[in-house]
Amino acid sequence: MTEFRLAWVYFAIAIVLASAANAADTEKAEDRKRIRDLGITIGTLAPGPLNAITDVDGVLVGHVTLNRGEGRLEPGKGPVRTGVTAILPHGGDLWREKVPAATYVLNGTGEMTGSIWIETQGALEVPILLTNTMNVGRVMDGVVAYMLKRYPDIGIRDDVVAPTVAECDDSTLNDARGIHVSIEDTVRAIESAKGGAVAEGAVGAGTGMMAFGFKGGIGTASRVLPAEAGGYTVGALVNANMDSRKNLRVDGVPVGREIRSDQPTRGQDGSIVIVIATDAPLDHLKLKRLASKASLGLARTGAMSHHGSGDLFLAFSTANRVPHYPKQRTYTMRVVADTHLDPIFEAAQDATEEAILNALTMATTTVGRDGNTAHAIPLDQLVAIMKKYDRLE
Amino acid sequence: MTEFRLAWVYFAIAIVLASAANAADTEKAEDRKRIRDLGITIGTLAPGPLNAITDVDGVLVGHVTLNRGEGRLEPGKGPVRTGVTAILPHGGDLWREKVPAATYVLNGTGEMTGSIWIETQGALEVPILLTNTMNVGRVMDGVVAYMLKRYPDIGIRDDVVAPTVAECDDSTLNDARGIHVSIEDTVRAIESAKGGAVAEGAVGAGTGMMAFGFKGGIGTASRVLPAEAGGYTVGALVNANMDSRKNLRVDGVPVGREIRSDQPTRGQDGSIVIVIATDAPLDHLKLKRLASKASLGLARTGAMSHHGSGDLFLAFSTANRVPHYPKQRTYTMRVVADTHLDPIFEAAQDATEEAILNALTMATTTVGRDGNTAHAIPLDQLVAIMKKYDRLE
Amino acid sequence: MTEFRLAWVYFAIAIVLASAANAADTEKAEDRKRIRDLGITIGTLAPGPLNAITDVDGVLVGHVTLNRGEGRLEPGKGPVRTGVTAILPHGGDLWREKVPAATYVLNGTGEMTGSIWIETQGALEVPILLTNTMNVGRVMDGVVAYMLKRYPDIGIRDDVVAPTVAECDDSTLNDARGIHVSIEDTVRAIESAKGGAVAEGAVGAGTGMMAFGFKGGIGTASRVLPAEAGGYTVGALVNANMDSRKNLRVDGVPVGREIRSDQPTRGQDGSIVIVIATDAPLDHLKLKRLASKASLGLARTGAMSHHGSGDLFLAFSTANRVPHYPKQRTYTMRVVADTHLDPIFEAAQDATEEAILNALTMATTTVGRDGNTAHAIPLDQLVAIMKKYDRLE
Amino acid sequence: MTEFRLAWVYFAIAIVLASAANAADTEKAEDRKRIRDLGITIGTLAPGPLNAITDVDGVLVGHVTLNRGEGRLEPGKGPVRTGVTAILPHGGDLWREKVPAATYVLNGTGEMTGSIWIETQGALEVPILLTNTMNVGRVMDGVVAYMLKRYPDIGIRDDVVAPTVAECDDSTLNDARGIHVSIEDTVRAIESAKGGAVAEGAVGAGTGMMAFGFKGGIGTASRVLPAEAGGYTVGALVNANMDSRKNLRVDGVPVGREIRSDQPTRGQDGSIVIVIATDAPLDHLKLKRLASKASLGLARTGAMSHHGSGDLFLAFSTANRVPHYPKQRTYTMRVVADTHLDPIFEAAQDATEEAILNALTMATTTVGRDGNTAHAIPLDQLVAIMKKYDRLE
Repeated sequence: MTEFRLAWVYFAIAIVLASAANAADTEKAEDRKRIRDLGITIGTLAPGPLNAITDVDGVLVGHVTLNRGEGRLEPGKGPVRTGVTAILPHGGDLWREKVPAATYVLNGTGEMTGSIWIETQGALEVPILLTNTMNVGRVMDGVVAYMLKRYPDIGIRDDVVAPTVAECDDSTLNDARGIHVSIEDTVRAIESAKGGAVAEGAVGAGTGMMAFGFKGGIGTASRVLPAEAGGYTVGALVNANMDSRKNLRVDGVPVGREIRSDQPTRGQDGSIVIVIATDAPLDHLKLKRLASKASLGLARTGAMSHHGSGDLFLAFSTANRVPHYPKQRTYTMRVVADTHLDPIFEAAQDATEEAILNALTMATTTVGRDGNTAHAIPLDQLVAIMKKYDRLE
Repeated sequence: MTEFRLAWVYFAIAIVLASAANAADTEKAEDRKRIRDLGITIGTLAPGPLNAITDVDGVLVGHVTLNRGEGRLEPGKGPVRTGVTAILPHGGDLWREKVPAATYVLNGTGEMTGSIWIETQGALEVPILLTNTMNVGRVMDGVVAYMLKRYPDIGIRDDVVAPTVAECDDSTLNDARGIHVSIEDTVRAIESAKGGAVAEGAVGAGTGMMAFGFKGGIGTASRVLPAEAGGYTVGALVNANMDSRKNLRVDGVPVGREIRSDQPTRGQDGSIVIVIATDAPLDHLKLKRLASKASLGLARTGAMSHHGSGDLFLAFSTANRVPHYPKQRTYTMRVVADTHLDPIFEAAQDATEEAILNALTMATTTVGRDGNTAHAIPLDQLVAIMKKYDRLE
Repeated sequence: MTEFRLAWVYFAIAIVLASAANAADTEKAEDRKRIRDLGITIGTLAPGPLNAITDVDGVLVGHVTLNRGEGRLEPGKGPVRTGVTAILPHGGDLWREKVPAATYVLNGTGEMTGSIWIETQGALEVPILLTNTMNVGRVMDGVVAYMLKRYPDIGIRDDVVAPTVAECDDSTLNDARGIHVSIEDTVRAIESAKGGAVAEGAVGAGTGMMAFGFKGGIGTASRVLPAEAGGYTVGALVNANMDSRKNLRVDGVPVGREIRSDQPTRGQDGSIVIVIATDAPLDHLKLKRLASKASLGLARTGAMSHHGSGDLFLAFSTANRVPHYPKQRTYTMRVVADTHLDPIFEAAQDATEEAILNALTMATTTVGRDGNTAHAIPLDQLVAIMKKYDRLE
Repeated sequence: MTEFRLAWVYFAIAIVLASAANAADTEKAEDRKRIRDLGITIGTLAPGPLNAITDVDGVLVGHVTLNRGEGRLEPGKGPVRTGVTAILPHGGDLWREKVPAATYVLNGTGEMTGSIWIETQGALEVPILLTNTMNVGRVMDGVVAYMLKRYPDIGIRDDVVAPTVAECDDSTLNDARGIHVSIEDTVRAIESAKGGAVAEGAVGAGTGMMAFGFKGGIGTASRVLPAEAGGYTVGALVNANMDSRKNLRVDGVPVGREIRSDQPTRGQDGSIVIVIATDAPLDHLKLKRLASKASLGLARTGAMSHHGSGDLFLAFSTANRVPHYPKQRTYTMRVVADTHLDPIFEAAQDATEEAILNALTMATTTVGRDGNTAHAIPLDQLVAIMKKYDRLE
């Protein structure tokens, strides 16, 4: 009884603080900037026109953001701070024109369904979906619904479908017990996926995510290699939900140690999902190696890959197609020689690092269930720290 | 139009043949026998009292069988020949008293969700569920529902859940597009799981499965090591849905080549999921090696591990507990020394081989969607062939 | 002192028995037959003209057999029952025209050097060498010597070399402490490698090996797919040194249980190395899957893959070339579609099974150090058992 | 002919430049400092008393440095800039008291023999040796010689030995074709291994290594966790031979971009071997995860893990012993719960990062074959750059 009342008091305080946080917050979506627009440049390679995974020709991204309710958690009802993000390697018939792909596990406290199949076929034949942990089943169901609708032969005269859904845990902000991302939301994320600029931060699967003790979520970036290195584009999209404040590095600067304000009401030692896309012609093995390089970009943000983190990566290449039940016995793949891979590896690392930083700088302060609050990283402080260390041009 | 009419003709013929098959079928459930009861003995180790995975003390199995409707496929409606099977390492608080576990992929054209997490934690904390391919999402949803009900702190003050669901494709017999296994069915399979004899053949997740061109599905077996080898029990449970007729071997005898009758109306080159349980104290690495040995028992049935097969194995040991967020920093594990593993390896291989054969000899002829029929292996022919080759005592 | 005298008595007895065994032995090399020549046919696919790994066009095999001295072990001196076997994917410039390759570990109590590199590059650029366990270093040295001689730029303007050497333990018959396989022996095995028929049994690296309690060693076999399955050739070469008598199966018949004679003086629970070659165009991933299928052929001989067994497999394809420091950024690979892989998988399994049996039926009784004796499997008994079970045409 | 003369001219110029470099070099061994002694602190955890892998109680390190000859390369003769380093988990009977261990491959263009066996047994039973690439065979031979001498039963009544030897390529400075590290050198490295301070830089296996376009080689560091995190010690020892100048980061500061002087005469895009030791009680799986964390420490130095890099890691724990052919069937292991692993992970990352930096700051300018020169990183410039960016206390 007493405990219960005490809980209410804490809750009331949390709500007040959160409201204050909200009130004080000048970091609205329209004020958020991408890391590069703050004058911070990661690496030496040039980004693509959108500095997004969609710079890889054909790649589509769709978000469905679920953000409703506030106040005390009513399990199963809300508040809802979650969503789903779809990434499509191309807008064509992916089922019949699969793309070479590979997965990589840096720290496997997480789930990426379909990875056994991707590692066997060496290719991806379904959209990639990101969502929250306990919603993976529902979103798989959504992918199946989408595929059944689109392919009437599936499960009758054609194969059955194994969806690829990867998760991070947003239960600090979100009513995770509510399993709020529906089949329809999933289908909508896939069907609304498009090229062009990609919304970042607290959107789609990133809606309830936290990273480095700030609001995290979706971030993206890209690199275009010079012509003499093949002119390939490499893009990264992350759902950043990992690590604690003290570890954050921005271009090597220990920003996390310096920003003492804007502490979250509660830590969330989550995960990061990283998707790497490229138009460089790579097969499964080279893509697996490429995916592994995301570890290095991640590390350079200071992330420690904690025990509780599901650091799961997926890389695909749009440059070849793997056929579905072809009549011809063989097909050809064009691939980059190993001795020419390094610029592609570098691009993946830099794009990953920048995508994570974009997730932070584009995310907006979010008050979730029970008033739990993840603050947007204060851009003014960030810039000031970079200046202090003489690292801004 | 003509095609459509032709389809109807084929369908009518199929139904007639199927009915004939049914009529002629003397292989009703009550007439089916386990392979050992036919006088066929696999290996030299003794089985446990039930010759089932439930001989491993504490292990529980639950089936929910969905078998309704007949005739032409109406996608989304039926006929339904599917189900869900739950295996629980123990009947206690698995979430807080995890068991060491490992997975193994022989051929990965399949899905076993949760395997990334099992391979990271080295332990299993949720029931293992088996079902059909496109139902994996729904069954994951069911596991989440079960866990949320049982553990009110999950997703609030406790971790979130990553279910372990493995699948085979039953779409030849079942209306796979219908996603007929519900959340409720899943919860029921878990909650009804019990020790004792295990129903085999066309039950639970095995309801619509086919193996070696016969009706397949669930099979189980066990071995008890002599006291001087530790006295451990090793049990196997399979969902057998793989391979074609010609490859079937029974205790090395090429039975599949000899039985020409009872051909299925349509082949189904599916998968096999194998779960190995033991009370031998093994840690993750030793269990991973144990799981890999299931390959050898599988091979001895003649299975080829075709491209399209999801040959996914999971092994767990009930002899140690892995704690959930323990206050104490360390815990102890008792393990069998590598140099004493061989009898346990042998037991797993023999139990696997026998479990697969039990799946065949216990399954009953099943007429599924569009009259597609999988016949029970004719036990009289099987016995006759074994006699012909002087392999029956 | 007493122990020492007792040891001498045992030794004298062993020598007498071994001599008797030798005297009684009618299983001389000229009397040995391959399993198929005994009327035993494994699987349904046709073998190639030589029924050997060299049926894969271009593949070369070289053996250097070291067999000298007899009587009591003088560590470092002898008796010597060992050797080295070289397998070359092609007779050209392998360093600059690498072949796609992959390795697979079924049970890793063994060593295959170079496997990390093969798994990274997805290709093989050096000859494959087989030898005894403690000789791996010396044989690596030999490969380096061969490469340095052939490629004067290596280590100066060109890369350095990582040899691929796989081992089994022949210490029951051989003075393993003597490290008798020299650099020169290794170079000779490589340089003498040739196409055509392959010597089997107690030759090369197989000289001191034992399998199923019989003399084992080198065996080979091949399969040629029908034109409608691609017409590809798949060959296997094994160094068989594993498992115990009771487990041996020949085409499923429990031959090991039935042959009670010819027991070895001492068991040797060793390993098996399996090399699969094919001219089917397969890339690294498909070759890795192909290599894994050797497990199934191995299992069908009854092998248990004991704890102490190094069951290490390597598969390569001669149908594509991977360039060495190419000027062109990309190259093309032709590959078989997954949906056409099954006949290739089947061929690998059957060739593996037959190669193991050939290792047994072609090996000759060998008396090694301390009179330790491994008997050739008695072909007359083998044939009689197969007839008894009505399994000989 | 003309080419030959031109080569001589280049050579003469190289020698002159190298001598100049040498002359100008104030960076003698006695002037070199460890990174921490320059005022640069990596991470927040405290180092052990020696800040070396030998802070882990019982761990021993031995170096044999081969540095002789100068001038033009005479293949097989010199100049010699190479060596061998031995790391022993404890000074007792490692063969019979094995330690839990695991390996991890970040980028596998390299060799670590014995890793298949370590991954199977989950333990290490032999000293770890580091050397140059083409010397791996000879050093394996040396380990075998050491083991045979120490264990007279090996290869007779006891098992055979599979050595663990890991390599980097020193062929830019060293006459790699000479295979200069002998069996005797190897035995000497093992037998001279001792606790206490560890020589760093151009010593042992690090003698001819280069990293970030500077002289690299051996580096070490350690961390001691606070008592409330278990008080465990974690040590790292690296052989750093990787990456190019522009990528070098020191505590996040882009030092490599700023130091334009002291360019090497020739790049060497090599590898890094990382050995992690701890007295925290970890089993194979937890050690594998620990080894993987070295990737993150590596990444924070800016290393890109290029295609040509063999980034191979090995972790072991001294807190448990794995018995050799025990009579008792089972043994116990004490392990840290997953939820208490994070500080150990952090320690491994920080120790790895610092060990790499120590390899640089402790290495001395080395002129190798053909006058090829790797300069020591100029400490004055390094300090100045760190000051410029306000990152020195």
